Amino acid sequence: DFLHALHEVPPAFGASTDDLARCRLNGMADCGDRNKHIYQRAMLLVEQVKVSKGSPLVTCLLEGSSGSGKSALAATVGIDSDFPYVKIVSAETMIGLHESTKCAQIVKVFEDAYKSPLSIVILDDIERLLEYVAIGPRFSNIISQTLLVLLKRLPPKGKKLLVIGTTSEVGFLDSIGFCDTFSVTYRVPTLKTEDAKKVLQQLNVFAEEDVDAAAEALNDMPIKKLYMLIEMAAQGEQGGASDAIYSGKQKINIAHFYDCLQDVVRY
Amino acid sequence: DFLHALHEVPPAFGASTDDLARCRLNGMADCGDRNKHIYQRAMLLVEQVKVSKGSPLVTCLLEGSSGSGKSALAATVGIDSDFPYVKIVSAETMIGLHESTKCAQIVKVFEDAYKSPLSIVILDDIERLLEYVAIGPRFSNIISQTLLVLLKRLPPKGKKLLVIGTTSEVGFLDSIGFCDTFSVTYRVPTLKTEDAKKVLQQLNVFAEEDVDAAAEALNDMPIKKLYMLIEMAAQGEQGGASDAIYSGKQKINIAHFYDCLQDVVRY
Amino acid sequence: DFLHALHEVPPAFGASTDDLARCRLNGMADCGDRNKHIYQRAMLLVEQVKVSKGSPLVTCLLEGSSGSGKSALAATVGIDSDFPYVKIVSAETMIGLHESTKCAQIVKVFEDAYKSPLSIVILDDIERLLEYVAIGPRFSNIISQTLLVLLKRLPPKGKKLLVIGTTSEVGFLDSIGFCDTFSVTYRVPTLKTEDAKKVLQQLNVFAEEDVDAAAEALNDMPIKKLYMLIEMAAQGEQGGASDAIYSGKQKINIAHFYDCLQDVVRY
Amino acid sequence: DFLHALHEVPPAFGASTDDLARCRLNGMADCGDRNKHIYQRAMLLVEQVKVSKGSPLVTCLLEGSSGSGKSALAATVGIDSDFPYVKIVSAETMIGLHESTKCAQIVKVFEDAYKSPLSIVILDDIERLLEYVAIGPRFSNIISQTLLVLLKRLPPKGKKLLVIGTTSEVGFLDSIGFCDTFSVTYRVPTLKTEDAKKVLQQLNVFAEEDVDAAAEALNDMPIKKLYMLIEMAAQGEQGGASDAIYSGKQKINIAHFYDCLQDVVRY
Amino acid sequence: DFLHALHEVPPAFGASTDDLARCRLNGMADCGDRNKHIYQRAMLLVEQVKVSKGSPLVTCLLEGSSGSGKSALAATVGIDSDFPYVKIVSAETMIGLHESTKCAQIVKVFEDAYKSPLSIVILDDIERLLEYVAIGPRFSNIISQTLLVLLKRLPPKGKKLLVIGTTSEVGFLDSIGFCDTFSVTYRVPTLKTEDAKKVLQQLNVFAEEDVDAAAEALNDMPIKKLYMLIEMAAQGEQGGASDAIYSGKQKINIAHFYDCLQDVVRY
Amino acid sequence: DFLHALHEVPPAFGASTDDLARCRLNGMADCGDRNKHIYQRAMLLVEQVKVSKGSPLVTCLLEGSSGSGKSALAATVGIDSDFPYVKIVSAETMIGLHESTKCAQIVKVFEDAYKSPLSIVILDDIERLLEYVAIGPRFSNIISQTLLVLLKRLPPKGKKLLVIGTTSEVGFLDSIGFCDTFSVTYRVPTLKTEDAKKVLQQLNVFAEEDVDAAAEALNDMPIKKLYMLIEMAAQGEQGGASDAIYSGKQKINIAHFYDCLQDVVRY
Ligand SMILES: Nc1ncnc2c1ncn2[C@@H]1O[C@H](COP(=O)(O)OP(=O)(O)OP(=O)(O)O)[C@@H](O)[C@H]1O
Ligand SMILES: Nc1ncnc2c1ncn2[C@@H]1O[C@H](COP(=O)(O)OP(=O)(O)OP(=O)(O)O)[C@@H](O)[C@H]1O
Ligand SMILES: Nc1ncnc2c1ncn2[C@@H]1O[C@H](COP(=O)(O)OP(=O)(O)OP(=O)(O)O)[C@@H](O)[C@H]1O
Ligand SMILES: Nc1ncnc2c1ncn2[C@@H]1O[C@H](COP(=O)(O)OP(=O)(O)OP(=O)(O)O)[C@@H](O)[C@H]1O
Ligand SMILES: Nc1ncnc2c1ncn2[C@@H]1O[C@H](COP(=O)(O)OP(=O)(O)OP(=O)(O)O)[C@@H](O)[C@H]1O
Ligand SMILES: Nc1ncnc2c1ncn2[C@@H]1O[C@H](COP(=O)(O)OP(=O)(O)OP(=O)(O)O)[C@@H](O)[C@H]1O
Ligand SMILES: [Mg+2]
Ligand SMILES: [Mg+2]
Ligand SMILES: [Mg+2]
Ligand SMILES: [Mg+2]
Ligand SMILES: [Mg+2]
Ligand SMILES: [Mg+2]
Repeated sequence: DFLHALHEVPPAFGASTDDLARCRLNGMADCGDRNKHIYQRAMLLVEQVKVSKGSPLVTCLLEGSSGSGKSALAATVGIDSDFPYVKIVSAETMIGLHESTKCAQIVKVFEDAYKSPLSIVILDDIERLLEYVAIGPRFSNIISQTLLVLLKRLPPKGKKLLVIGTTSEVGFLDSIGFCDTFSVTYRVPTLKTEDAKKVLQQLNVFAEEDVDAAAEALNDMPIKKLYMLIEMAAQGEQGGASDAIYSGKQKINIAHFYDCLQDVVRY
Repeated sequence: DFLHALHEVPPAFGASTDDLARCRLNGMADCGDRNKHIYQRAMLLVEQVKVSKGSPLVTCLLEGSSGSGKSALAATVGIDSDFPYVKIVSAETMIGLHESTKCAQIVKVFEDAYKSPLSIVILDDIERLLEYVAIGPRFSNIISQTLLVLLKRLPPKGKKLLVIGTTSEVGFLDSIGFCDTFSVTYRVPTLKTEDAKKVLQQLNVFAEEDVDAAAEALNDMPIKKLYMLIEMAAQGEQGGASDAIYSGKQKINIAHFYDCLQDVVRY
Repeated sequence: DFLHALHEVPPAFGASTDDLARCRLNGMADCGDRNKHIYQRAMLLVEQVKVSKGSPLVTCLLEGSSGSGKSALAATVGIDSDFPYVKIVSAETMIGLHESTKCAQIVKVFEDAYKSPLSIVILDDIERLLEYVAIGPRFSNIISQTLLVLLKRLPPKGKKLLVIGTTSEVGFLDSIGFCDTFSVTYRVPTLKTEDAKKVLQQLNVFAEEDVDAAAEALNDMPIKKLYMLIEMAAQGEQGGASDAIYSGKQKINIAHFYDCLQDVVRY
Repeated sequence: DFLHALHEVPPAFGASTDDLARCRLNGMADCGDRNKHIYQRAMLLVEQVKVSKGSPLVTCLLEGSSGSGKSALAATVGIDSDFPYVKIVSAETMIGLHESTKCAQIVKVFEDAYKSPLSIVILDDIERLLEYVAIGPRFSNIISQTLLVLLKRLPPKGKKLLVIGTTSEVGFLDSIGFCDTFSVTYRVPTLKTEDAKKVLQQLNVFAEEDVDAAAEALNDMPIKKLYMLIEMAAQGEQGGASDAIYSGKQKINIAHFYDCLQDVVRY
Repeated sequence: DFLHALHEVPPAFGASTDDLARCRLNGMADCGDRNKHIYQRAMLLVEQVKVSKGSPLVTCLLEGSSGSGKSALAATVGIDSDFPYVKIVSAETMIGLHESTKCAQIVKVFEDAYKSPLSIVILDDIERLLEYVAIGPRFSNIISQTLLVLLKRLPPKGKKLLVIGTTSEVGFLDSIGFCDTFSVTYRVPTLKTEDAKKVLQQLNVFAEEDVDAAAEALNDMPIKKLYMLIEMAAQGEQGGASDAIYSGKQKINIAHFYDCLQDVVRY
Repeated sequence: DFLHALHEVPPAFGASTDDLARCRLNGMADCGDRNKHIYQRAMLLVEQVKVSKGSPLVTCLLEGSSGSGKSALAATVGIDSDFPYVKIVSAETMIGLHESTKCAQIVKVFEDAYKSPLSIVILDDIERLLEYVAIGPRFSNIISQTLLVLLKRLPPKGKKLLVIGTTSEVGFLDSIGFCDTFSVTYRVPTLKTEDAKKVLQQLNVFAEEDVDAAAEALNDMPIKKLYMLIEMAAQGEQGGASDAIYSGKQKINIAHFYDCLQDVVRY
């Protein structure tokens, strides 16, 4: 029923640039040096694929805590590559589908990529593509076998392909042999105090004297949690404060900010 | 057969306000400060979703012992939000359905929510939606993958969504990675002695001199068990006493009350 | 195929009073104080359901060793309640049926109960309904999820329901979260020496001087085993003695009685 | 597909007396006192079922090592009972059938038994009926649930049923709760030295001076192994000796007998 | 679908003598005394089946390391028996078939055997018939139940059957209760130094002064490995030497022989 | 549905020489003595198969770390053999197929090989053919049983077959009994410092004074990683340097090379 599944696959996938843009809803802020370094290295891989004769297939894994900005980074590389074919494979467009239909869709993306001289395929949230759950653990072996083969299969003569994977379960992926199949792996970090400070300064929602304390409290936080926390704090204790704060008329109360931090952080 | 399952889904779901009201059959009594605090925080999230531009999706988990009032609280927030779309997803309306049909119904609720500018989806008793049972443990991975993706997927541009989950198996949910996907988590407490006293005073079924002793005995009890216990005790040892007690003509015999407590509490 | 299964369900279930009567083939003997106490408490729950406004659903579990008289007790409560709808759900009428057909039949009983103002549903031998077996352990999660939801779902406005469950595997039921869903749980005891003596005196098959020794030997025995043992002993060592014994012309030889006890008791 | 399975069941089962006779191909030799005792007790149960009013259903388990003569004993009781309906349920007539078809056949035997005033059903080699294998362990839960219910279900009013089960895996049956469902359990023993001697004397294949030594060597052997061993030894070391030995012209060489014993016994 | 499977079975199985011959491609060399002893005992069983009245079914298991010559031995017994029906059941003719089809084919062989007065059925490589793999472990319970029953089922009156099984996984077979069902079990040994020497002398490929050293090195080797090793060594270090060696013009270089031994033996 | 699967198999498999060539995209460099030794031994097996009368089936396993050059080596042997039938069985051409379809394709390759007087079948990446994943572990038992039988089944009279397997999971293969079925096993090594130096000298991308340091750093690296690393380093820190380096105008900066080594090596 795999062949059957292949026929269920719609002929075209929709505008992929839209999909890439959705990963960066709030644009990209400067998140510190380590983040920038990873971006640069990934762009070198883009170039390597383009010019190299010996590596028609390069694979790169971005791993890191949940919400640390992996998908946004992968999407940025995809956009900045200017490759004619850039596609993101995500569980969001395959909700509730049967394993073999998911396989067929994934294979289809690679087959399409093989037709373009230069391609990038982003395997976003690989653990979700694999239907991974820690208890058991359980995951789809059909999909994992498919990916293991696709990550090693060379594109046809003259075609070049960069595969970027993202995951927040690198330990699991390693245990099923995925890490070995990626040429390189980068760990996308959470924000350090100085990185958090940079982001807070761009947002400009704290009084000057509070920024350092706030940044200190945000040490080791993923960027996604930081944004959620700022939004919560910006409502104020009684609600209704966010307009004043975002327009700069008011600053976030640092005590209330600490309060919200309690709700968001899990011990 | 997922697509097939989707077609089985009835076009409309019935009056959702009815469903919300059923969660609060006895109205809402004052259950103490911690309870009130959680209600207020949840209402701040409602406002955040309404006014924010950066958080089109906020997710909040209410966890706590069985019968502690989580569903009633979630329903209250839903009712008080005045959002145009408030829907409760409950295992009660999906008894005996196949996993993929349940998935389809859940997806349908989210798809409907995406059409409304402001929505609340209540995932009531998530462990039951997942068909969880502690031995094994067993649960539906299809449904859990579906929820994991839905809890991260952003609504379409311009739409906003608050998801409230309830569970009495937070340890299980944590172990399969659900807790990480919720923006915030609140623990709905059992009644402390002083909270129980407040509730007993509203009910007015004990002699004044017995209220403190009764409240003491009820320390750490979920609100649901408290109501059941009072009803049992109100029958009297020989039965037939409840009319007299509820009409205030008679009080509950404290010795008989202790007796009933034995039957209800498990050691 | 659940819907399909629902259609397989025969429209009417046969005379339920017959089913109740079959649980008490030998009538009900006086089995001691603890037994009587449980009966009285259960009858109080019957009254609570009838008069209460706040507890439209009350659930009660009878647990105890195999053969201790749980089903007979539940049936007696059902008969004595005089409720218009009393139905027993038993694995005996569902031999060999598929899990989902069993679910459908169980759901059907509850749906029927919801139509009557006052109902009792007896879930007899819950471990057997769940197809439980200790090795693994294995059981039907579909049926257990169905029961977990049914045991919490409120009947429609104005309808009242008492659910009585019986089990000899309370440890298992507890481990899958069933015990928490029952409002109260009572342990139906085996016979103590003095209870056994009462039963023996009613049967009048021992010589007066043997009754105490016999009752002593029967300490901690379930009522079912006691009846089987008496019947075996009544045949006599060579067979053919039972008529003389039941007509009172002869008494059971106490030595032969001890002999039979060896065969029946497992160490 | 259980219903479907029921239709596959052939209307009549063939002559059951043939089936019983096949269990006793070599007739019945005197195997010692313990064996005789079990036979007598089982015949008392036959009488109990016949005359009793209170025990319409009696169940008896014969357990013991492989080859100890359980099936032969059960068949003998069946034949000697003179009950109008005696049927043996054996895996031999259900090779390769699907679990639910086997269930249907088993249920059919009980339904047929319910139509006769007095019946015996022999469940031969219960572990084989359950498709048991020690690794895992694995077994058919559908069949085991069916048997668990059938072993407790009372026949219709006025009908009486004795169920005799045999097994060489009593530990397994106990662990899945089968032993509790049988009214009585008897362990069919292997041959002790004196029992073996009796059998050897009946066979008359050893020189008088060798019988004691041979019987000693056969201590603790199941009757089946004894017969196989004698046949092997009777061929003689070079073959061709069996005619002389069975006709009494020659005796088994005791040294060769010891030799064969090595091949048959596993350490 | 077992019945369906039975129909898939081709009416005739091809010439079985061919199958037997294929197990002895290189003829039978003298492999030492233990080997001969087992052959003789197996031939005694053949005679026992032929002349005996009390053992219409005899079962014999040949177990031993992989490549020790079990299949060749079983085939030899089959050929030398001169029984009208000798059939080998092997996984080689059932590659890729579904479990129940394999069952049907196996049952068919036994049913055919039951039609012949004297039959031998060889169950070759039982672990492979059972689809055994050590991890898990996994195996087909359907096939193993089928074999367990067939190994105990008596042929119809007047028919006689010898079943010979072979296996190199006797530990596994024991753990699933197979060993108990065989009347006798023989361990087919690997070659001892003196056995290996005999074989080498027949092959005549070593210089006289090297034979002892070579045989010493071959101690505890299965016959299959010995043949493979000799063939490898016979090519010579540069290849091309085998003609000279087999025609006797040249001898195997003992140093090169040791070299090849390294490749073949696993530590 | 195995038969059905057989019909899905396309009649011809495409030009196999193409498949072999693809395994050696960059040609074959001299990788040191151990590598050469394995090649020579494998070619001796080719000759053995060709000339031998006693070994119509020889099986050889090449195992070693991921990327160590096993597939390239097997393909080279296949090409250099000049056998009329050389086919590579790879998971790449069976992505997403059902287990039984994969079986059918594998069987087809062997059946085709049996028609040619001299054949080589390469089972590339056996763990991938078996859909192996370390967690569980999981793998297809249907495929593994098929291979276990095919690896022992002799080709028809007059036909000869060499099977070469490759794997980087030799521990797993051993644990499921595969290693025992191969006549010989060779471990394909990673590069030692001196081997790496040879390869680097052929590539000529380092300054003479850096070659030793670079080779030292590359000790124990698989050839695949070495090539990937050189390509990365050749881009230069800012990109754009590769043309200059491959044309010999520039050399790889050794510091940058060390940097890239960090990205590629996992600790
Ligand atoms: N550099 C950045 N500047 C601004 N916003 C960012 C940046 N990186 C990520 N974000 C935002 O942070 C949020 C989380 O980022 P993203 O989804 O890429 O993280 P992730 O690591 O993929 O998370 P997950 O593990 O949940 O998949 C997104 O809303 C994204 O738009
Ligand atoms: N504040 C309150 N005042 C009065 N009654 C309440 C209040 N909160 C809950 N209840 C009542 O207590 C009972 C239990 O509440 P609810 O079902 O919300 O608990 P829960 O935590 O969701 O339980 P469960 O874990 O079983 O799902 C309900 O009958 C509800 O109407
Ligand atoms: N009080 C009683 N007086 C007389 N007979 C009784 C009494 N209670 C039970 N029995 C009889 O004892 C037998 C066992 O009772 P019952 O089936 O109710 O036990 P149980 O606990 O449900 O057993 P199980 O665990 O096997 O379901 C029945 O035959 C029943 O008629
Ligand atoms: N008392 C006896 N006298 C003579 N032969 C007997 C006697 N009991 C059993 N046998 C024979 O011994 C053999 C084994 O007996 P039987 O099959 O009844 O044993 P079992 O315990 O059922 O074995 P299993 O565990 O294999 O089912 C049969 O051939 C039977 O005919
Ligand atoms: N006595 C013998 N003389 C000569 N060749 C023999 C002898 N016994 C076995 N062989 C040969 O040795 C090889 C292995 O023998 P066989 O297949 O019977 O072993 P096995 O124990 O069945 O192996 P496996 O465990 O792999 O099934 C065969 O090629 C067979 O022809
Ligand atoms: N001797 C060699 N000279 C040049 N390139 C080689 C050599 N051996 C292997 N390669 C190249 O190295 C890469 C890896 O080789 P190959 O795929 O054969 O390794 P493998 O051991 O099969 O890897 P895997 O474990 O991933 O299957 C290929 O690109 C191949 O062309
Ligand atoms: Mg992401
Ligand atoms: Mg709730
Ligand atoms: Mg009962
Ligand atoms: Mg038996
Ligand atoms: Mg063999
Ligand atoms: Mg390879």
